[in-house]
Amino acid sequence: MVTNRQERAIGIFDSGIGGLTVLKAIAELMPAEHIVYMGDTARVPYGSKSAAMVTRCATQAVGRLMTIPLKMVVIACNTASACSLGALVETVDRTGAVPVIGVIGPGAHEALARSRNGRIGVIGTDSTIRQGAYQHVVKTLAPDTMVTAQACPLFVPLAEEGWVDNEVTEAAARRYLDPLRTRNIDTLILGCTHYPLLKGVIATVMGPDVQLIDSAEATAREVKALLHARGLERASGEPGKHAFMVTDAPERFARVGEIFLGRPLERVELVILQA
Amino acid sequence: MVTNRQERAIGIFDSGIGGLTVLKAIAELMPAEHIVYMGDTARVPYGSKSAAMVTRCATQAVGRLMTIPLKMVVIACNTASACSLGALVETVDRTGAVPVIGVIGPGAHEALARSRNGRIGVIGTDSTIRQGAYQHVVKTLAPDTMVTAQACPLFVPLAEEGWVDNEVTEAAARRYLDPLRTRNIDTLILGCTHYPLLKGVIATVMGPDVQLIDSAEATAREVKALLHARGLERASGEPGKHAFMVTDAPERFARVGEIFLGRPLERVELVILQA
Repeated sequence: MVTNRQERAIGIFDSGIGGLTVLKAIAELMPAEHIVYMGDTARVPYGSKSAAMVTRCATQAVGRLMTIPLKMVVIACNTASACSLGALVETVDRTGAVPVIGVIGPGAHEALARSRNGRIGVIGTDSTIRQGAYQHVVKTLAPDTMVTAQACPLFVPLAEEGWVDNEVTEAAARRYLDPLRTRNIDTLILGCTHYPLLKGVIATVMGPDVQLIDSAEATAREVKALLHARGLERASGEPGKHAFMVTDAPERFARVGEIFLGRPLERVELVILQA
Repeated sequence: MVTNRQERAIGIFDSGIGGLTVLKAIAELMPAEHIVYMGDTARVPYGSKSAAMVTRCATQAVGRLMTIPLKMVVIACNTASACSLGALVETVDRTGAVPVIGVIGPGAHEALARSRNGRIGVIGTDSTIRQGAYQHVVKTLAPDTMVTAQACPLFVPLAEEGWVDNEVTEAAARRYLDPLRTRNIDTLILGCTHYPLLKGVIATVMGPDVQLIDSAEATAREVKALLHARGLERASGEPGKHAFMVTDAPERFARVGEIFLGRPLERVELVILQA
């Protein structure tokens, strides 16, 4: 049944809409792959919830996603990757048949590969930064690295408002990022799926000497490598299909989703989770 | 058992932390009253959820609040008042024994009483504005009134970040409010419990000719009138006690709550709702 497994979709889970940046990166790198996206829009944002609550919500939503036959699952949400990846692997990947990856590992590896001075910054939601997942992975792989972390809670609502490059966003970016600029970092991890939308403003504030690491792109490359290693790439030359499931407000998801994908979304289905 | 009912607490429900502005207004007007506050922090914000999901969450949380003997319930959340007041009255107040009031009615009445030119603005979350509850109440009471509504989704995260009067907040306020300024309104309803925190910036942008209506204060006056009419005011001269229940992250609630109350919070209890 190898052919069958190749034909299966990649599952992408996110707390809401931000994971569409990961979907976009995967679709650009692997246009033939089918993708099913699950956004827990009833309970977004995860970034201000406790770690226990994030795990509870994520486990339930990923459990629902797994009722569809998938070849792998990507936890696109940085907060869920930081707080709950272990629990999700336990739930989904016990046998290793459906591998589960998060976005923290790929982002951290990429930053280490590209930093020249060993001084790395990471920005993310309150929960992601407080959880210290990026800091932990980077320090484990390269103990001499200096990691400076900064929570930027306003960046998610700014991106969802579509204010990606106006004076409000630039003023907020200066407030959050000016302290990082004094630390002489040469690499900055965008540790939240929404942040690639604000890449232009972040690059302006940080200046040309700081390279930005987009976890979405790093994750897409890891997905490709993993599918290739397991012989699970879809062989067909025709484009893959994309389907979307959300736990609330599908119209809003479709509307804001266009900002992320730069194109209208196909079918968005509402699924109600009892938790 | 009249004495007993007088000794009961006022229940305040909010989607999260914003309802503390209503608690503060009630406590200032009626310092002897006991208050129990319930914030549904596991599922905040309500402002970007569908009306059906708001009703589902609010009904469950208010049901939990009602397990405590109360003399009345205030739905401090504008979004829940706009989307779910009918359903909540159905659930809680079927017999009229424990009256339930929202914040929309008091705010709308106050605005109508104070406007001289019959041109009123209202700002709130996406859901509150889309639901049109303020617009509907004002137009029902005074059909000739011109109501202009504007959603300001960034104001809640700005208030929760404690950015109540910096350049980011002022730039955001100009973006949202400049269109309202062209409509010649003389009265602006702050249709979200968080917005009184940004009153200074909003007043600066709107100018001295526009009066701001704080629904929290209007609601507190209505609570006092209702308790007085029913003979339910607490007679004691000693200060009332305040207790807080939240559905997630009590530490964060206590921390951000200080921004709202201007003083440390007493006991914050975590209650888990299964829904």
